[in-house]
Amino acid sequence: MEQPIIDPWESTIKLEYDKLFKYFGIKPFSEIRGKAEEVFGQLHPLLRRGVVFGHRDYDKILEAYRSKESIALVTGFMPSGRFHLGHKMVADQIIFYQKLGFEIFIVLADIEAYTVRKLDRKKVIEYALYEYVANLIALGLEKNKRLHIYFQSNYEVPYYRLIQMFSRKVTLAELEAIYGKLEPSKIVSALTQAADILHPQLDYFGGFKYVLVPVGADQDPHIRLTRDIADRFHAELGLERPASTYHRFITGLDGNKMSSSRPEHAIFLTDPPQQAVRKVFKALTGGRATIEEQRKFGGVPEKCTVYELYVYHLIVDDKKLADIYRACRSGELLCGECKKQAAELLVKFLEEHQRKLEKAKDKVLDYVEPPKF
Amino acid sequence: MEQPIIDPWESTIKLEYDKLFKYFGIKPFSEIRGKAEEVFGQLHPLLRRGVVFGHRDYDKILEAYRSKESIALVTGFMPSGRFHLGHKMVADQIIFYQKLGFEIFIVLADIEAYTVRKLDRKKVIEYALYEYVANLIALGLEKNKRLHIYFQSNYEVPYYRLIQMFSRKVTLAELEAIYGKLEPSKIVSALTQAADILHPQLDYFGGFKYVLVPVGADQDPHIRLTRDIADRFHAELGLERPASTYHRFITGLDGNKMSSSRPEHAIFLTDPPQQAVRKVFKALTGGRATIEEQRKFGGVPEKCTVYELYVYHLIVDDKKLADIYRACRSGELLCGECKKQAAELLVKFLEEHQRKLEKAKDKVLDYVEPPKF
Repeated sequence: MEQPIIDPWESTIKLEYDKLFKYFGIKPFSEIRGKAEEVFGQLHPLLRRGVVFGHRDYDKILEAYRSKESIALVTGFMPSGRFHLGHKMVADQIIFYQKLGFEIFIVLADIEAYTVRKLDRKKVIEYALYEYVANLIALGLEKNKRLHIYFQSNYEVPYYRLIQMFSRKVTLAELEAIYGKLEPSKIVSALTQAADILHPQLDYFGGFKYVLVPVGADQDPHIRLTRDIADRFHAELGLERPASTYHRFITGLDGNKMSSSRPEHAIFLTDPPQQAVRKVFKALTGGRATIEEQRKFGGVPEKCTVYELYVYHLIVDDKKLADIYRACRSGELLCGECKKQAAELLVKFLEEHQRKLEKAKDKVLDYVEPPKF
Repeated sequence: MEQPIIDPWESTIKLEYDKLFKYFGIKPFSEIRGKAEEVFGQLHPLLRRGVVFGHRDYDKILEAYRSKESIALVTGFMPSGRFHLGHKMVADQIIFYQKLGFEIFIVLADIEAYTVRKLDRKKVIEYALYEYVANLIALGLEKNKRLHIYFQSNYEVPYYRLIQMFSRKVTLAELEAIYGKLEPSKIVSALTQAADILHPQLDYFGGFKYVLVPVGADQDPHIRLTRDIADRFHAELGLERPASTYHRFITGLDGNKMSSSRPEHAIFLTDPPQQAVRKVFKALTGGRATIEEQRKFGGVPEKCTVYELYVYHLIVDDKKLADIYRACRSGELLCGECKKQAAELLVKFLEEHQRKLEKAKDKVLDYVEPPKF
């Protein structure tokens, strides 16, 4: 327990994500974390604390950064609902890399939402603009020439050409092996995602650059397909494989995955603060059955959704986090008090954020051009 | 035999294309030919002579024309080789409808050539420009605001958006039923062709218009799929089913399908005239085994590839054609003499055409913008 706040889940991850390491060649991020800290000077808490747990070719990104070569960060959002703390994890990483000088490409996956999830196009576009982009701006995403936010249905011709061309060198059999049962919508979506990730390397978009894609662990199939496609178009289009990092999902306050579809267990960035507080007070913790037991054995922060809120979002200072961890483990800090502290931090964050969000909404159309229909 | 030059193949077609009429609801063009002649004032020989043998919803096109509503003609070329007399049949129909005032959309299917036929992209673009577009110009295609020639890989965003959106409402099972064994390239191509046919109806492209697609009989699967897609997007995008006509293939001079892959039996519009003449002299005819037999029983123009050249391309005047038909049937005109006449007409056509073609090549880039890569 020398460094309790770094990778509190390392054992769980090892168990849970073992397959990713073993079968798919994803490497533990912990192995490269020291070097990353050295190269970048500092790391975002999500990278320091084992929330980002795996990577492919991150060493190449570090090398490129060290030699001052161009690097693009590419990531996307499926605008299918309200923006919650799970989305904020991606936003925080985007902003971290933007501050380091990476060129940023953010795809609003309106077509995937429309074709695969079968959502209404107008609603998807509204969500994309006033939930996703607005929250990104409020969280600190800077508008500059090296920021590109686009809708899949409203971008540049060479991007669409890439989707078309990719269809030549992909087989149904391999897509089926990756995605299971297929439909044309999924096939087009898969090719589109490969174009999302690889298009920044084209001359039209500024020419070759290294590409880093931070994703949730469930997105690795897309990364594998995209790396294969890059290999197949290396000679013809000069494409190179993207690097990627993998982060844990944030847990919903009931202990399952945080999702817009179970809003009572998710914290949305537009939740009225008192509503968010009520959710926190009902959250599943790592506490014991009785106060006596907890005083005696201590809590289990590794199983606590409130502790996760601290680690992922509410506490930047590692020392403070370590204090809470120790106080919980020792039985000194009980869940009620701990929830109260978390609720206070959350209210402070939400109030500030929502003030920024109101202003951000007016700037959305400076950041991205929505499709006309 | 009252009108021998109209539909000399009606019986053969009935046999050959019976399935199209019976199972797929294509209607005989002969049933509507009279009305078409009345509405348009005149008909192109290919429409008058039964080369165009079938249609869907052509009556709607006639109605729209009569009420002076907007009509688009949409057709395409797969730029996979040299431009031959089979392509000229499509070109002639385009130009006929352009003179009637139809808005013209011509797709250069470079992506299909690249993904499905796996051809080299640069070659495909070269062929598209200097074989297809150049020959269309030389044949009389007029540049005006209502002419749109485009590459599938280099068009407008709302066209690509349509391809993406179509993927939502199409199933793999139905594509398989239509096309047989699928690959991602074929799926993307099929959706692209539906967008080629339906995009002129979008507001972005000038708003609703009737669409007519003249195709070879083998292209009906695309038309059926596109009609279904139009139905499924009627409420959402206001799309209506396209009308279509179906033409016979031109026969190669050996009696099989004319194709660039067997150049010795195809007449290319860039063939040196004397080379074309040599091909004609070796052509399969409907002649008898001996001159005596032919004098006695007459020739069989219905089986003659030289007679087909007259009908499709070399003789516009119906009376002249009828004279040849009768002279052949009666045994008066022998194949040698007939080939000589055809060769003369062909040389005259090719010489004139090739003069125009040289000039047309300089104008190609005024007609279409090629993709940059």
